[in-house]
Amino acid sequence: MKRFLTLLAASLLSGAASIAVAQTADEPIQIIQPPKSINLGMVELGKKLYFDPRLSKSGFISCNSCHNLSMGGTDNIPTSIGDQWQQGPINAPTVLNSSLNVAQFWDGRAGDLKAQAGGPIANPGEMAFTHTLALGVLESIPAYVREFKQVFGKDKVDIDQVTAAIAEFEKTLVTPNSRFDQWLLGKKDALTADEQKGYALFKDTGCVACHNGEAVGGNSFQKMGVVEAFKKDDPATGRFAVTGKDADRFNYKVPTLRNVEYTYPYFHDGSANTLTEAVRTMGRIQLGKDFTADETRQVVAFLKTLTGDMPQFTMPVLPPSSDATPRPQPFPPKAAPAPAPKK
Amino acid sequence: MKRFLTLLAASLLSGAASIAVAQTADEPIQIIQPPKSINLGMVELGKKLYFDPRLSKSGFISCNSCHNLSMGGTDNIPTSIGDQWQQGPINAPTVLNSSLNVAQFWDGRAGDLKAQAGGPIANPGEMAFTHTLALGVLESIPAYVREFKQVFGKDKVDIDQVTAAIAEFEKTLVTPNSRFDQWLLGKKDALTADEQKGYALFKDTGCVACHNGEAVGGNSFQKMGVVEAFKKDDPATGRFAVTGKDADRFNYKVPTLRNVEYTYPYFHDGSANTLTEAVRTMGRIQLGKDFTADETRQVVAFLKTLTGDMPQFTMPVLPPSSDATPRPQPFPPKAAPAPAPKK
Repeated sequence: MKRFLTLLAASLLSGAASIAVAQTADEPIQIIQPPKSINLGMVELGKKLYFDPRLSKSGFISCNSCHNLSMGGTDNIPTSIGDQWQQGPINAPTVLNSSLNVAQFWDGRAGDLKAQAGGPIANPGEMAFTHTLALGVLESIPAYVREFKQVFGKDKVDIDQVTAAIAEFEKTLVTPNSRFDQWLLGKKDALTADEQKGYALFKDTGCVACHNGEAVGGNSFQKMGVVEAFKKDDPATGRFAVTGKDADRFNYKVPTLRNVEYTYPYFHDGSANTLTEAVRTMGRIQLGKDFTADETRQVVAFLKTLTGDMPQFTMPVLPPSSDATPRPQPFPPKAAPAPAPKK
Repeated sequence: MKRFLTLLAASLLSGAASIAVAQTADEPIQIIQPPKSINLGMVELGKKLYFDPRLSKSGFISCNSCHNLSMGGTDNIPTSIGDQWQQGPINAPTVLNSSLNVAQFWDGRAGDLKAQAGGPIANPGEMAFTHTLALGVLESIPAYVREFKQVFGKDKVDIDQVTAAIAEFEKTLVTPNSRFDQWLLGKKDALTADEQKGYALFKDTGCVACHNGEAVGGNSFQKMGVVEAFKKDDPATGRFAVTGKDADRFNYKVPTLRNVEYTYPYFHDGSANTLTEAVRTMGRIQLGKDFTADETRQVVAFLKTLTGDMPQFTMPVLPPSSDATPRPQPFPPKAAPAPAPKK
């Protein structure tokens, strides 16, 4: 965080930001703009909550379990593991740069990060808790009560404060300074010839129609399988589940391609293990284009230049539970022993 | 880490270390001595491995899952959650100050941290992987291969290097500067009157017979249930499982009481939820002493002064998998659809 702010200050002082605007105006991808207004008290509280598994029924699953900040903000498995090892229905999207998304979740059912943050806590297949129980845990921990009061100025902890703090922390999870952004900012040797060819292909073949803007995606909903059906047996319905409109069937939020080297496996079902496979499939089913091996290699090389500086922060130390804190329930209670049979 | 080294340097420069020896010579508890010789390259590599869930079959469980450094180096549940949500047989001991233990695991079956580190990776009830498969994952990740070579100077990654690096990181997880250590070092107002009374009780009633030394425990095996049986139906056998000697039945490594405020629930089965409960039970079954409510409160107050400075470090960013990296297996493979019944 500190490093990020330093970088921001340096950019502003050197006038790099205004140069950037001039240089990237013609490009369909823009450099990442850092958040303009951050409440640092909320960020520090939100960071603790993001890492706190006591917001789950089991006491084992935190936001960071599936949106792991050591691993590109994802869990790197096709679909996530929830309470009691339940298999999730969809691939966990990265939390990195998620503040740039037009909406949250693959189907956009949450309008912003704050609306998203409450979902997994109460989802029976994920953290399997309830907002009421989560608040009961937080209110039983004196250090949390003090920190909530300091940050929000109220005597009572409520779920709006919890989700607002988590969302504020998530706003800091942007990844500036990728080699591609350096190139956009004028460092012409930041990309190799192959990477530049890959970018040219990415533009010329039409990838940029959906993957554009600061996040190289995240800003529209599009049909998965425009030219060719994605998978004949794919049971997910995408944004149709939210709008009920037939036109939204199989529509998904276009994922960001920032740090895509870290966010494998790919697609809403996590079915593509490698970038090579993802690029070939996307070319075929979205653009009707069979990329050659060389073209695929070049597009993949370009995509890897979108890896930015990962958020750097000290791992939070969570305040300990008190004697009054309700204990987590990681396992079903043991059944009482059966009564001895009558003789 | 940096903070810790700074603190160490300050202590040495001011001559505090020699004062400490003089002042604590008469006390059964000594201040925590920082590790004398640390290989920083190994520490940084070991930190990544400690946080890397790719050392598990599922890709979901890392060392930090059960020895969570945001939560006192434990998981704060009675027994841990393993692969496929299996219930572990015993409470996860804290990794904090574990380098001070006479041996590792509750039954001491590993002689040191290095010997311990390989266990959970290959335990079918924990990370459920094999050393061979874990090495295959690491060797498929170019950034790991380079870092291992830099640190160990060999072309091949082996399990000895993996466990040595994890152990080296764990050696840094000491927690100096508790209020009790400050008191031992001469800051007489570091403890309240109640806390000092609690310490006097802790000594006078005999708790220190087992909970002594730098870690306030961790340096001997003792029978759980000296005066009174712990639980009539406790199925665990303790150190008997290692030595096969009847005298070792129900013997366990005495746990450290450093940061005990953070390491709930207590005992090898995690059956005591609060420090109050743990102190009362220990008094009764180990010492034949029924602590009064006031005495219990004072001993608990003393125990909370053993909370030191938690390790402070930047959360590691793990190198991404390559196309060649074997993918994790979080869920059993889907069964092939049953053939249609013949009509």
